[in-house]
Amino acid sequence: MRIQRSIGLGAALLVRVSLAQTFQRLGTCPTLGCVFPPDQTDFLAGQYFDIRLEVHAPINGSEANGKQPDEKFTFTIAKKNEKAVPATEYFSLSEPKLERWNFSWYEDLFAKEAGKPSVVNVTSKAYRKVALYEPGEYTATLTYNNGSTTKASWLVRDLQEVRKAKNIILFIGDGMTTNMITAARLIAHKAVNGRYQTKMQMDQFPILGHQMTHSIDSFITDSANSATALYTGHKSTVNCLGVYADSSKDPFDDPKVETIAEMFFRLTGGHVGIVSTAFIADATPAALTAHTRDRGQYGAVVDSFLNGITNYTWTNWTGPDVLFGGGAEQFYDPKLGGKTYLNKDYYQEFSKKGYQVLWNNTALSKASNDSKALGIFTVSNMAKWLDRNVYKTNLNQSLSPSGDKTAALDQPGLKEMTLKAIDILAKRSGDKGFFIMSEAASIDKMMHVLDYDRALGELLELDDTIKATIAKLKAINQFKETLILVTADHGHGFDVMGSVDTKYLAAQNVDRKKRDAVGTYQNSGLSQYAHSGNLSYTEGVHFPSNWDPRYTLFQGLMADPDRRENWSVHKGGPRVPAVNITPSADFYANPKDGAGGLLLNGTLPVGDDQGVHSLTDVPVFAMGPCQEHFGGVYNSIDIFFGMAECFGLARRKGYGQ
Amino acid sequence: MRIQRSIGLGAALLVRVSLAQTFQRLGTCPTLGCVFPPDQTDFLAGQYFDIRLEVHAPINGSEANGKQPDEKFTFTIAKKNEKAVPATEYFSLSEPKLERWNFSWYEDLFAKEAGKPSVVNVTSKAYRKVALYEPGEYTATLTYNNGSTTKASWLVRDLQEVRKAKNIILFIGDGMTTNMITAARLIAHKAVNGRYQTKMQMDQFPILGHQMTHSIDSFITDSANSATALYTGHKSTVNCLGVYADSSKDPFDDPKVETIAEMFFRLTGGHVGIVSTAFIADATPAALTAHTRDRGQYGAVVDSFLNGITNYTWTNWTGPDVLFGGGAEQFYDPKLGGKTYLNKDYYQEFSKKGYQVLWNNTALSKASNDSKALGIFTVSNMAKWLDRNVYKTNLNQSLSPSGDKTAALDQPGLKEMTLKAIDILAKRSGDKGFFIMSEAASIDKMMHVLDYDRALGELLELDDTIKATIAKLKAINQFKETLILVTADHGHGFDVMGSVDTKYLAAQNVDRKKRDAVGTYQNSGLSQYAHSGNLSYTEGVHFPSNWDPRYTLFQGLMADPDRRENWSVHKGGPRVPAVNITPSADFYANPKDGAGGLLLNGTLPVGDDQGVHSLTDVPVFAMGPCQEHFGGVYNSIDIFFGMAECFGLARRKGYGQ
Repeated sequence: MRIQRSIGLGAALLVRVSLAQTFQRLGTCPTLGCVFPPDQTDFLAGQYFDIRLEVHAPINGSEANGKQPDEKFTFTIAKKNEKAVPATEYFSLSEPKLERWNFSWYEDLFAKEAGKPSVVNVTSKAYRKVALYEPGEYTATLTYNNGSTTKASWLVRDLQEVRKAKNIILFIGDGMTTNMITAARLIAHKAVNGRYQTKMQMDQFPILGHQMTHSIDSFITDSANSATALYTGHKSTVNCLGVYADSSKDPFDDPKVETIAEMFFRLTGGHVGIVSTAFIADATPAALTAHTRDRGQYGAVVDSFLNGITNYTWTNWTGPDVLFGGGAEQFYDPKLGGKTYLNKDYYQEFSKKGYQVLWNNTALSKASNDSKALGIFTVSNMAKWLDRNVYKTNLNQSLSPSGDKTAALDQPGLKEMTLKAIDILAKRSGDKGFFIMSEAASIDKMMHVLDYDRALGELLELDDTIKATIAKLKAINQFKETLILVTADHGHGFDVMGSVDTKYLAAQNVDRKKRDAVGTYQNSGLSQYAHSGNLSYTEGVHFPSNWDPRYTLFQGLMADPDRRENWSVHKGGPRVPAVNITPSADFYANPKDGAGGLLLNGTLPVGDDQGVHSLTDVPVFAMGPCQEHFGGVYNSIDIFFGMAECFGLARRKGYGQ
Repeated sequence: MRIQRSIGLGAALLVRVSLAQTFQRLGTCPTLGCVFPPDQTDFLAGQYFDIRLEVHAPINGSEANGKQPDEKFTFTIAKKNEKAVPATEYFSLSEPKLERWNFSWYEDLFAKEAGKPSVVNVTSKAYRKVALYEPGEYTATLTYNNGSTTKASWLVRDLQEVRKAKNIILFIGDGMTTNMITAARLIAHKAVNGRYQTKMQMDQFPILGHQMTHSIDSFITDSANSATALYTGHKSTVNCLGVYADSSKDPFDDPKVETIAEMFFRLTGGHVGIVSTAFIADATPAALTAHTRDRGQYGAVVDSFLNGITNYTWTNWTGPDVLFGGGAEQFYDPKLGGKTYLNKDYYQEFSKKGYQVLWNNTALSKASNDSKALGIFTVSNMAKWLDRNVYKTNLNQSLSPSGDKTAALDQPGLKEMTLKAIDILAKRSGDKGFFIMSEAASIDKMMHVLDYDRALGELLELDDTIKATIAKLKAINQFKETLILVTADHGHGFDVMGSVDTKYLAAQNVDRKKRDAVGTYQNSGLSQYAHSGNLSYTEGVHFPSNWDPRYTLFQGLMADPDRRENWSVHKGGPRVPAVNITPSADFYANPKDGAGGLLLNGTLPVGDDQGVHSLTDVPVFAMGPCQEHFGGVYNSIDIFFGMAECFGLARRKGYGQ
């Protein structure tokens, strides 16, 4: 899938001297006049978005200009080869009111350490819920400070309006890289003389692509920002859900962009399903309906699932057919300890709108396919595959979704949730089709805490879910009309470099001797995970037969807190590699973790207790109608445009207003 | 590209209890009867190979059987649904003579530490230069010890004999992963608001695949073994070039398999070019013509380039048209210090066979396109792109290819060598076409020494070379008939996790404070490599404009020796991260390296002074005839079968004997 635009006019204009600093005044705004969406933005024809303009007057720091922020800035839109006209005229809007605020930032680590922030006064306006319908190039021009200009080159992609797929199922392996898929294959599939005897489902997809995950204003992304790119075609800033980040304090007034779920529902009446093994207000599910620059507004996120955006006029939205995941604490009554939006009981709110409310796997399996369903199966993130299937005593925690502090023992896996979602959506959507986002969230969460075994277990569960999904679609005769995409939102720096003789490692008393337990190249040997042991599972077949062999994987992340590494499965539940031993955040290796292992100093700031995301392009596997759009190397936003084209969601002038 | 075979019969038979140990008695031989090629082997119809049989009698250790190795073992071949016949009859060979030897190995690290080897007596036979012509499944059966059997399921793939490409150019980025390509893109290509303004050439290839690089008997490979898989369709053991590893002491008697270069030359008369930035006897170029289980036999490798295999009857080979690279020490007269095969002067040997001998870039550019050419431009590995173009004083070393101890200042890059190779091969091959292997060897070599900047420079030079190659093929009107493949032979665990404020890092005195210089997520900022500075280069355009910005990449490997990391460019030449401070191999951080940086303990055995290879699947980019064979996920051997099919090299019974 190729990026379809000429090189923008803004490229040469917007470079300033000191880019790439650790801190930035405001991402995407290197000059003192800011336009959001910024230069180089692409749009789907007919996609709703907001425009935010800002004029900055830095009152101290290296950019101080001794000015008050301009109140009389102007803003025009010009389609290529046409005259520039005021935005109010172009969009038939009345002039928005002028807003004012200020914010501060640190120019670098020295300024931060010295406690010397730079303060910026701001004037601003926002144009809400506009759209561009005619394909082609546009120039948006902010004129301020007596003739300074900030120009943004915008492109409305020229996509066909023909629908090619009835359904799309988008699987997101959060944080999943090619390196992790390779490792998961090694532990779950048996090889004889270098030939795997069974195959991962992902390895059988006909089309492979790579997508670039970087943020709009930093090269490492988080899951909010990257989900926004996948769902809207707009890259944004870390922590943003469905908005560009402005500099105001209000986390809900940032300029919005419409998502694939919102457009699919608004324009076709198609049905939407949202499934995740995370707490359901987490970034990857949230970005389908929420619009805030602060992904931490969990209560509001849950409200957005049900009611859409309520603070501004926005796209039509009446809730997904299916919402399955964890995070009961954003649903149950605050009297039970719930942390909900406006202190409401969201089980009741969903129930009032006709949702079945499901709290365990048994209820899930028995639920009707005729009604909408909310399935919330635990407080916080859902239990990991490894704990549900192997180390089951770890489920004995006070995490019941009801809020009654009992254990959440009967949790479904990603497979059970996804298959039920398909059943409900296929039944309810009829000819209109469906869009499902199904997220294996804890690949990321377990990589963050350096719990490689649990992370790979989650990845294998994702693969098993994809396999079962294909079988299900064939069984209900919807396989040929469904595009299946499998991708990730970003990576973690992870790989496997050999094996570890854990018996030898444990027998050494000196760290430098423990390192001899590592076997590289020919001494890596074969995987014992698939070649020994006798574990079997109620779900799926291609999982390790032994999670605790003598010879384990010499695997790891590249950016870590202090930790003790013994390269063995963490039987007691998800790993806690580092703990805080001071009143301030100052993390050291957890003395209870990695017994007998090698003590390793971290490389991350000592306030970090877990690993971080990485830069690497992530894989995209595609199968079904339009699969050919997803081969080769492209930007993350192209996933959105590919899906939108496959659903035929572009609307040229005259349609869909 | 899909693997075309049913699950082999051997799968269930050959599993033993204690697989995956750090040490193995003999890879691919878990029982006491060994057949090479082993179970699960695929062949191209008409491809020459040797067969080696061994019977093992362990005389101590856990496998000791108190027996003498069987002298009367028998060996049969059966095509599927046909009767088993003795191999001598099947291949019309006389019975080979019985060989005997013994070898020893350590069962694990405890046995090694205690100095208690396990000794094995062996009887053996070898059948030389045989081939299978009829596509289909075969069972090879070794019967020994009164009725024990070792069965190998062999498959001759059913490939068409139609030639679809006139030429193939195979680019190998040694050790290159998707993660590294992502990092190289970040430092060399400018992005504005998340959109790259220029593209890597690799990113523009229409087809993307992933190949699995694992060895036949260990999950981490080296470059010898992985090159063997790419060139022959046979995975093998670490250190093997074009052979399966037997247990004998002789490094030249192991069972051979014919390479793509040998078959292309033998069957079509097509011409071959070999280009590398490594010393030319290094594994990746060597595996095209050499057949030995010890990649360290450099002199013999150089002889094989010119004379092919001389110790046994083998495929027809009279030398490549082009052999360009480093490693003069295997060529010049031993009186000057050369370390050559049989103490010959290999400049003279090549010259006697009609080769032009070229020692610098000036001579390369002026060389005739009518004659074969040997270009050896330095002792050891060639100079790195970063030293040739930015830190040029590092070239002042006594590395002249003549052996006269002057400096090798006028070295070509991969681009100059590859373009000249195309000129010569296009001119000389006429209608017969050509095969070129062009290797960016020092991506790997610089990753090994944790010199990330130099490694990424080499990767960018590879990308620039591919771009120039496409332009050259178009200029000589051979673009449409040439398949271009770009891949790697294995990975290194590498990624980028953020940025480093090197100024802040240098200003801190305490390691835990230095870690605060790391910026992750939104604090990673933008790449300063492409956004600042004013460097430009005589070759190529898409390289960093600044290699030494204040904000560098927080990048690294995952398996390291002790080292001091300051995440800054190493201006004095390739990095030396660790040094030996004792008579035994016991490496500590090099006190002269990484000034002002963070001291980090390694995770590798302390005898290792550099990083190691990793497991990850590596990318494959394809463009040209047959490109469709190279999409999706597949095994490394499928690259060979894809190229062989594209050249139409399969030969069924009756042809090509």
